[in-house]
Amino acid sequence: MTATTPPALEGITVLELGQAYMGPYAALLLQRLGATVIKVEAPTGETYRRPTARKATEAMQFSMLNAGKRSLSIDLKTDEGKRVFHDLACQADVVIQNFAPGAFERLVDVDELMRANPRLIVASGSGYGSTGPYSGIRAMDLTIQAIAGVMSTTGFEDTAPVRTGPAVVDFLGGSHLSAAIMAALIQRGRTGRGQKVEVALYDAVLPSLASNIGGWMDSDGTIPERTGNRHGGLSVAPYNAFPTADGWVAVLCLHDRHWGILCDIIGRPELAVDPALSTNAARAADIDLTDGVVEAWTRQHPTAEIVAALNDAAIPCAPVLSLQEVIDSPQTRERGMLVQHSDAERDWWVLGSPLRLTDTPAPEAPRPARLGQHSREIVGEMLGLDEDALDALVDDGVIFDETTARPPQPVRLG
Amino acid sequence: MTATTPPALEGITVLELGQAYMGPYAALLLQRLGATVIKVEAPTGETYRRPTARKATEAMQFSMLNAGKRSLSIDLKTDEGKRVFHDLACQADVVIQNFAPGAFERLVDVDELMRANPRLIVASGSGYGSTGPYSGIRAMDLTIQAIAGVMSTTGFEDTAPVRTGPAVVDFLGGSHLSAAIMAALIQRGRTGRGQKVEVALYDAVLPSLASNIGGWMDSDGTIPERTGNRHGGLSVAPYNAFPTADGWVAVLCLHDRHWGILCDIIGRPELAVDPALSTNAARAADIDLTDGVVEAWTRQHPTAEIVAALNDAAIPCAPVLSLQEVIDSPQTRERGMLVQHSDAERDWWVLGSPLRLTDTPAPEAPRPARLGQHSREIVGEMLGLDEDALDALVDDGVIFDETTARPPQPVRLG
Repeated sequence: MTATTPPALEGITVLELGQAYMGPYAALLLQRLGATVIKVEAPTGETYRRPTARKATEAMQFSMLNAGKRSLSIDLKTDEGKRVFHDLACQADVVIQNFAPGAFERLVDVDELMRANPRLIVASGSGYGSTGPYSGIRAMDLTIQAIAGVMSTTGFEDTAPVRTGPAVVDFLGGSHLSAAIMAALIQRGRTGRGQKVEVALYDAVLPSLASNIGGWMDSDGTIPERTGNRHGGLSVAPYNAFPTADGWVAVLCLHDRHWGILCDIIGRPELAVDPALSTNAARAADIDLTDGVVEAWTRQHPTAEIVAALNDAAIPCAPVLSLQEVIDSPQTRERGMLVQHSDAERDWWVLGSPLRLTDTPAPEAPRPARLGQHSREIVGEMLGLDEDALDALVDDGVIFDETTARPPQPVRLG
Repeated sequence: MTATTPPALEGITVLELGQAYMGPYAALLLQRLGATVIKVEAPTGETYRRPTARKATEAMQFSMLNAGKRSLSIDLKTDEGKRVFHDLACQADVVIQNFAPGAFERLVDVDELMRANPRLIVASGSGYGSTGPYSGIRAMDLTIQAIAGVMSTTGFEDTAPVRTGPAVVDFLGGSHLSAAIMAALIQRGRTGRGQKVEVALYDAVLPSLASNIGGWMDSDGTIPERTGNRHGGLSVAPYNAFPTADGWVAVLCLHDRHWGILCDIIGRPELAVDPALSTNAARAADIDLTDGVVEAWTRQHPTAEIVAALNDAAIPCAPVLSLQEVIDSPQTRERGMLVQHSDAERDWWVLGSPLRLTDTPAPEAPRPARLGQHSREIVGEMLGLDEDALDALVDDGVIFDETTARPPQPVRLG
C-alpha cells in the first residue's frame, strides 16, 4: 500500500435505493472500497430509520448498514421527483434497488434511463429474479429460507425445520450483488457500456446446499435431511457440537490422523487403533458410538480448556459463543467488524467490510446521515441548481431536508 | 447484449489452489464471468475428487463447484514444482488459495512472486484472516458457525444451539472473495499494480447477524438468543413457520395492512380491528396469541392452497420445501442453478451462477476435468515447453497427467 493510491472504487457514484439488507449491504461493500454512495430514501426514510420496538430509537441496523453513505430524501411518486432522479442517474455509475417485484419499474423507466446514460449499471436484487415461475413473488429472508431448502436441512431429524438465526440469505444476496456490479464495472471498462445486472436471493443461497445435495444424491435420499449438528452428509465423524462442563464446543476430525491425536488428548489412545473407530468409515458407520466417546470427555472439562488443547493440536474446533460474546470478542474488535462510535449526541455501531485489499484501507465510518441530510447538497452539486431552485424543490415536496422530512412511521420491521 | 461483447472477465487467467468450497466457489463465479480458471491440484487431487462414503464415486460437489475449470496437477512440494508454479503465476492475473493458515506460504514465496509479477492479485481465504488473536487457527464452516454466533442464534430457546444445514459460512466467504478480487482488478486498471486481498470466513458471516445484534441491543439482552422460527428480534408478528395439513409454511406480515388482509383470508375479519391484535406492537407483545390464530387456520389446509391464497394477496409466504423438492423445483431448473448433464461415460451436475449480467451470458458447462487433464497443455502453452521438456516434468513427478496422477485417497470429507 502506498499513501497515494486511490481506493479501488474512487470516483464511482452509486445511487442506492436499498431496503433493509440486500441492497444496502451491496452498497456498503462498494462504499468501503471508496465509492460515493448516495442513499435515496422516501420522505419517510428507509425501513430501519423507523423507531425500534423497545427503545423507540432508530434501529442499530441503520448505522451498521449505512454509516458512510450520504442521504438524499426524494419523493419518487411525483413527476418532478422522477425527473430529478433521472437527471441524477444520468451522472451516476450505478443504481442499486431491491424493492418488491415491479415497484422500481413503476417509479423509474429503466430502459429510457439507460438510453439517456448508456454507461449506467442498473443492479437489481430480488427474491427470485426476473425469470422463472416464481419471478414476481415477493420474498424475504424467511420465505427464501423456507422455499430453498435451508429450513428443511436445519435442525434435528425428529424436530421441526428450523430457520437460520442470522439473515444469511439477505447477506448472501448482498455480497453477490456487489460482485455482479464490480463485474459490470470491469466490463464497462472494455465496452464503454453499462448494463442491467441482477442477483436473486434464491439463486444466491442454492450453492450453499452443495454438501446437502451431494450427500443426498450419494445416499439416494436415504439419509435424513436434517442432521442436527452432525455433518450434512453423515460421512464425517466426529463432526458435532458437544456439551462441555460449562457450554458447548464444536469439534471435527477431517481424517484419521486427527482422530489419533484426539484419542491421545482424551486419554483413550487404544481407540486410535480399535477397528470399530480407527477409520472415518468405521466412525461414520456408528456415529453414536463415536460421538459418545468424545462427549464423555467434553462433559468433564470447561470449554476453554478443550479449545486450548485442540487448537494446540490443530484439530478444528471452536467454542459455541453467545451473541454477547461475539460482540465482545477480541477478534471482532481487532478486525474492526463491529465498532461502536459516539459523539456528543449519540452512539452508533458500524460494520467493517469483509473485503480486505492491501491497497485500499477501510475509510473512517462517520456518523450515519440524518434523513435527507445531503439532499440539497447532492442535487445542487450534481444538477448545478442554485439556492432558489433548491428551495422550490423543497417547498414543492420533491426533495426533503432534515426539517421537512416526514417523521418516521411506527415500527414495521424490527 | 450484443453477440460481439466479450464476457466481463475474458482474458483474465486465474490459478485456483482451492479446497472444498470457499476458494473453488470464488473461482467458479469468476469462471462464469469469462475468466480462464486453472485448478491447481496436488497429485492426489482436491478434497472432493475422493471417493464418496456410499457410492465411492467422485463427489457430486466436485462437478458442481469445478465444471468449466481446467485441471493442472502439480507437486508443489518439489523444488521443480515450485519453479513451474512460479513461472505460471508470472503469467497469471489472479491466484486464489484457501489452504490452512501458513500452508500456502510454505509452498510459495508470495512476496517474491509479487515482485516477479507486480500485476498479480493474490487472494486468500481463511477462517480468521491474517490479523487478530484467532489468526492462525484452522477453521471450517462448522467451527465458524460455532464461534461467530450462528449456532447460538439458531434453534429454539429451550433446545441446543443448532448448526445451519447449508454451508452458508463457506459460501458467504466465497462470494465475498470473488468481490474482493474484482475490486482489485478494477484498482489494477488504474494503478497497474496487483495486490494481496483477503476475506476471512469470520468477517464474512458477522454482518448477517445484524438483526440479532440490533434486537439484542434494543432489548438490552432481554430477548432469547434463539427464537426458533420467529423473528430474531421478536418484534414482528406473525413471522413464523406454521404446520399445515400436509407440511409447513412460512408466513410473515410486514405491516398492519398485511395483517388485515390475512384476517380476511382466514375468515376472522374481526381480528383486524381487535385492539389485542390490530397493531404489530400488540401482536409482538403476545406472539403466542397471534401465532395461535394463524396456526389454527394453516393446520386445516394443504400448504399449496395456503401459498396460493397468500401469494395472490402479496403477503410474504413460502412452502418449506424438502431438499428433493428444491432440486426438482421449476425455479431451480429454469434459472439453471442446478443442472444435470451427461455424456456416454457419466452424469454430472453443475451449479449456475447467481451473478446475472445481461452482457455476459453464462458459458456452457463442460464435463468436469479429470485430474491433471490439462497439465501438459497448460504448462506447454504458458511456459512454451516442447514435448520432451513436458515428458521430463511428468517423468520427474513434477506435473501429472491422467495416467500418472496418483489414485485418490479414501474419503476424508464427504
